[in-house]
Amino acid sequence: MTRIALDAMGGDHAPAATIAGALLALQELPAGHVIQLVGRPEVIRAELDAQTANATAVASDVGSRVEIVEAGEVIEMSDKPSVAIRGKPNSSMAIGLRLQAEGKSDAFVSAGNTGAQMAASAFILRLHAGLNRPAIATLFPTARVPVVVLDSGANVDCSADELAQFARLGAVYAEDILGRSNPAVALLSIGEEPEKGNATVKDAHQALATAPGINFIGNVEGRDIPMGTCDRGPVDVVVCDGFVGNVLLKFYEAVPKLIIGLLARAGIPREKLAGAFEGLDYAAHGGAPLLGVKGVSIICHGKSSPEAIKNGIWVGLRAAESRMSDHIGQRLATHSDEGPRA
Amino acid sequence: MTRIALDAMGGDHAPAATIAGALLALQELPAGHVIQLVGRPEVIRAELDAQTANATAVASDVGSRVEIVEAGEVIEMSDKPSVAIRGKPNSSMAIGLRLQAEGKSDAFVSAGNTGAQMAASAFILRLHAGLNRPAIATLFPTARVPVVVLDSGANVDCSADELAQFARLGAVYAEDILGRSNPAVALLSIGEEPEKGNATVKDAHQALATAPGINFIGNVEGRDIPMGTCDRGPVDVVVCDGFVGNVLLKFYEAVPKLIIGLLARAGIPREKLAGAFEGLDYAAHGGAPLLGVKGVSIICHGKSSPEAIKNGIWVGLRAAESRMSDHIGQRLATHSDEGPRA
Repeated sequence: MTRIALDAMGGDHAPAATIAGALLALQELPAGHVIQLVGRPEVIRAELDAQTANATAVASDVGSRVEIVEAGEVIEMSDKPSVAIRGKPNSSMAIGLRLQAEGKSDAFVSAGNTGAQMAASAFILRLHAGLNRPAIATLFPTARVPVVVLDSGANVDCSADELAQFARLGAVYAEDILGRSNPAVALLSIGEEPEKGNATVKDAHQALATAPGINFIGNVEGRDIPMGTCDRGPVDVVVCDGFVGNVLLKFYEAVPKLIIGLLARAGIPREKLAGAFEGLDYAAHGGAPLLGVKGVSIICHGKSSPEAIKNGIWVGLRAAESRMSDHIGQRLATHSDEGPRA
Repeated sequence: MTRIALDAMGGDHAPAATIAGALLALQELPAGHVIQLVGRPEVIRAELDAQTANATAVASDVGSRVEIVEAGEVIEMSDKPSVAIRGKPNSSMAIGLRLQAEGKSDAFVSAGNTGAQMAASAFILRLHAGLNRPAIATLFPTARVPVVVLDSGANVDCSADELAQFARLGAVYAEDILGRSNPAVALLSIGEEPEKGNATVKDAHQALATAPGINFIGNVEGRDIPMGTCDRGPVDVVVCDGFVGNVLLKFYEAVPKLIIGLLARAGIPREKLAGAFEGLDYAAHGGAPLLGVKGVSIICHGKSSPEAIKNGIWVGLRAAESRMSDHIGQRLATHSDEGPRA
């Protein structure tokens, strides 16, 4: 049995979207798994009642597979990250994560304030030894299968060592959640040659080129991400700092909107296009794991739809069942003495 | 009369594509302008003869509007940038630029080795006072009108001062070449707030916020580029370092390929799509000026088609006629004592 704590109060459309997402997930999740809805009980109860009354297809055993966990405070989207740690100790975020730290839950999923979730996750779950900060791993749709891009926003100023750490985190994610064996890990740069890139990227290339336990395939360029492949073969993981990753992520999110506009002008009706771009929809991929914490913390987009929340819950389940966090700890421990930092 | 020197030997498809591009340009350019084809005379002559013999529509006065300028050496795509300065003093690139330095030409256009062109342009044309390095300004297609993104690859490690200089260079380009009055200049970051971004971007924001003579509208995010607008209105210029700009540029180039693949899978025939994506075609926008040099040096994509070369020639003509380089010099001189560097 896996227990997934969902921040019922987190996100632009909470609690309607979070509760709806939980109900969608219950229809798909194998029996025995439990969703822990964390937040204000009266709000959650009212939303659950309203949605189960209206729904045409609600799992019949909702009652036995949903737990409500009381949390009296809510972190607002505008709150500073530190609020999650000190200002509101009884927020749905803090309580959801504390459940896991106390062994009463297996994964935490939230569409709330990302900065607060990162801070609270690192503080409450703690980081694996040898890591400075956690990283956000996002799936980018490609012409092939999705590529893991990290960091996509947790760390804007990164050292070469940190980029090399991200490579290990991303490799475990690709193995455990995406099922890629011996995933190909690449470093994002502005040319394939090791001497291309800014100072940090060039140093990270040197570190990764000699790092054990990583299938490092060298540098890739921006164009290789939408293709999911480079001239040395398929790419599974792309490593970059959180500034570049976040700029790319948001850039990519806006592209379908632009393309649909262009095609509509060219006389191709919008309805015909919606289906084609489903693969580019972030909701289809759900949450992005915060990698490096001892446990599972899944970050969903603030604008998450019920479908996106449901997918975030699935990512949390897979991360917990595959023991991704343990594997990251093992991977870091195994190579900490022989790695580039030496 | 404007004289445009074209590096006849530069680019993956030279000299066929460069000569074809020059002939296309001659059909459109107002009478009196001259194209100087720089390279090996026998190669240029043979290509010109072959193409004018086959062409159905060649300007009747080609002979009087084309000059062949001898250059015995060719810079290869694999040559180091320094080769352009020391190793091959008689390359088509060095000679084309020297013509301009000697007052015998008004603009230089090349699809050859970009690193070599940057080095040779800075060495031969020299930089305006107060600049450390030139920047490449690229047009990104958007849902609105194109946005100028700079630097898009000349400088991978930038200081905050350099980012602030790019803002001035980009503003003059938007005014002179794109005809935008009082162009809106934005800084690329990962959030709108001044305190978002990496250390350099945060410092650049502070410098730009108090800089005179610039319509600085604050930070934009990745998503604002494909839209060409942010919640504070239209965006004309986006400033970033050359690492981020180059990653984005190459990422964007690959997107139409991905999208056409997705749509074809959804049953929308490729032929119907080609027209819709014309606006995303780099060839439609032609060359990217190397800003900051005293003169005009236009960088075309190595894979440039004749259409792209023709458009590069047009950009060179507009830059020369608008006296863009003089305006950049004036703008830098006017604000050098009151600007952020103080």
